[in-house]
Amino acid sequence: MNKREFIKKSIAGVVAGSVLSIPESFGKEKQKADDPFKLGIAGYSFVHFKLDQALEMMRKVDVHYLCIKDFHLPFNSTAEEIKAFHEKLAQYNVTGYAVGPIYMKTREDIDKGFEYAKRVGVKLIVGIPNHEDLEYLSRKCAEYDFRYAIHNHGPEDKLYPDATSIYSRVKNLDKRLGLCFDMGHNLRYGKDPMADIERYHDRIFDLHLKNITAAAAEGKTCELSRGIIDIPKFIKTLRKVKYSGMCSLEYEKDMKDPLAGIAESVGYYKGVVDATK
Amino acid sequence: MNKREFIKKSIAGVVAGSVLSIPESFGKEKQKADDPFKLGIAGYSFVHFKLDQALEMMRKVDVHYLCIKDFHLPFNSTAEEIKAFHEKLAQYNVTGYAVGPIYMKTREDIDKGFEYAKRVGVKLIVGIPNHEDLEYLSRKCAEYDFRYAIHNHGPEDKLYPDATSIYSRVKNLDKRLGLCFDMGHNLRYGKDPMADIERYHDRIFDLHLKNITAAAAEGKTCELSRGIIDIPKFIKTLRKVKYSGMCSLEYEKDMKDPLAGIAESVGYYKGVVDATK
Repeated sequence: MNKREFIKKSIAGVVAGSVLSIPESFGKEKQKADDPFKLGIAGYSFVHFKLDQALEMMRKVDVHYLCIKDFHLPFNSTAEEIKAFHEKLAQYNVTGYAVGPIYMKTREDIDKGFEYAKRVGVKLIVGIPNHEDLEYLSRKCAEYDFRYAIHNHGPEDKLYPDATSIYSRVKNLDKRLGLCFDMGHNLRYGKDPMADIERYHDRIFDLHLKNITAAAAEGKTCELSRGIIDIPKFIKTLRKVKYSGMCSLEYEKDMKDPLAGIAESVGYYKGVVDATK
Repeated sequence: MNKREFIKKSIAGVVAGSVLSIPESFGKEKQKADDPFKLGIAGYSFVHFKLDQALEMMRKVDVHYLCIKDFHLPFNSTAEEIKAFHEKLAQYNVTGYAVGPIYMKTREDIDKGFEYAKRVGVKLIVGIPNHEDLEYLSRKCAEYDFRYAIHNHGPEDKLYPDATSIYSRVKNLDKRLGLCFDMGHNLRYGKDPMADIERYHDRIFDLHLKNITAAAAEGKTCELSRGIIDIPKFIKTLRKVKYSGMCSLEYEKDMKDPLAGIAESVGYYKGVVDATK
């Protein structure tokens, strides 16, 4: 149920119920416009869980968009298996909005990746290509009319440690070639997430929402509420640049028992979004 | 670790780590003053769980104040049992800040309740006394120098449906006699939580933090993030009146499997608090 339906239902409850007087100022009747960006979950958060378990966690935290990882939907899935996968997601009111991240070390990997996305029925791929394949990738984006979001992975990543290393290589290529901006890894490399959102937002197609414990290589993902990144400022920056993609929570702490941390992070995101509108 | 220590540690991490450049604006270095109020959990949230299980959930959500219910520490506990109880809480870095709610239907119940609180070592009792015992209770508060917070329980509660029904009866009694303000039940009775915080804050000693699905008798507790009460406005009101007690989360949905909902609620509270500072 979206917010408007919820408020409607609540007002109906007031009319039908045993209310003595209707308070004027408690509520959210005057909803401000929804943001163009949405909350999702990056499939990697559920690396230790089967799809059913992952979807059950998504149901509990009321999140409805999933970036699909191949451990939940293998690259060689048949049409029937893909259909069954989407039907299962639909049972939980979840949409698979993209696939990846997918490491694509060869042009054959790229070709297979695009065909996989096509069969899955999404038009956004999160991936990690080699530098020398970027022009090839640019032509593939045009051919398929897909967007391709390259993922930055911090100090240990020789190809794409930060947003700048991606943007500088794609800025003159097809406009459908851009970034899956990982705000945590970017800061682990010493780069301000807010400044880079402002700089590169025209090519940011997906985003790994997270917080980290330190602005250094040894920084670890933590609950969105407990890290060093100023999330209210981050959300305000997304609004400022009119970001319209997903904020895909990638939760990498307590990965074998992540529900509490995912729920706290989802709550924190919603609290910040509501309080800064 | 508090925020200041956390920031210190993070900055140390930057100095020690492999950071290429130190971003200037990502973080929370410029912490604003902590609020005088704190987040706690009302023991009733854990009615289906043993103390160890409750404390394990509190550890996961990083909350450190508990209002003690008698199902975790019975009224007839011995001095040794009370000592062991506090030691167990200390292992989880949790402080039992009050006892209750306790129904006190007779003066004997009141006498026993005050002696129980004294043996437990807290100076705040949440309770439900009869109207005719309020003057007696006023004298007990003076005798023990304890505060006593009467709990409002909504439309079904013949004694104290809302904050007004308490305040009007205690305003001329000892100043240590006041309210445990249940914002959810208050709105289920049709009374605006924010307006009543402003009206009665001088006698509000404790607070049941929650959200509800409808401003009517049939309204149910839900995740703090999913109800009809405007929580950002609520937090701003607490600051405006300089509330200095606990915000004690009372989570009454999915009570046999509450961890995800508690975590989402804790995250939402923290997000709202951080974003409105």
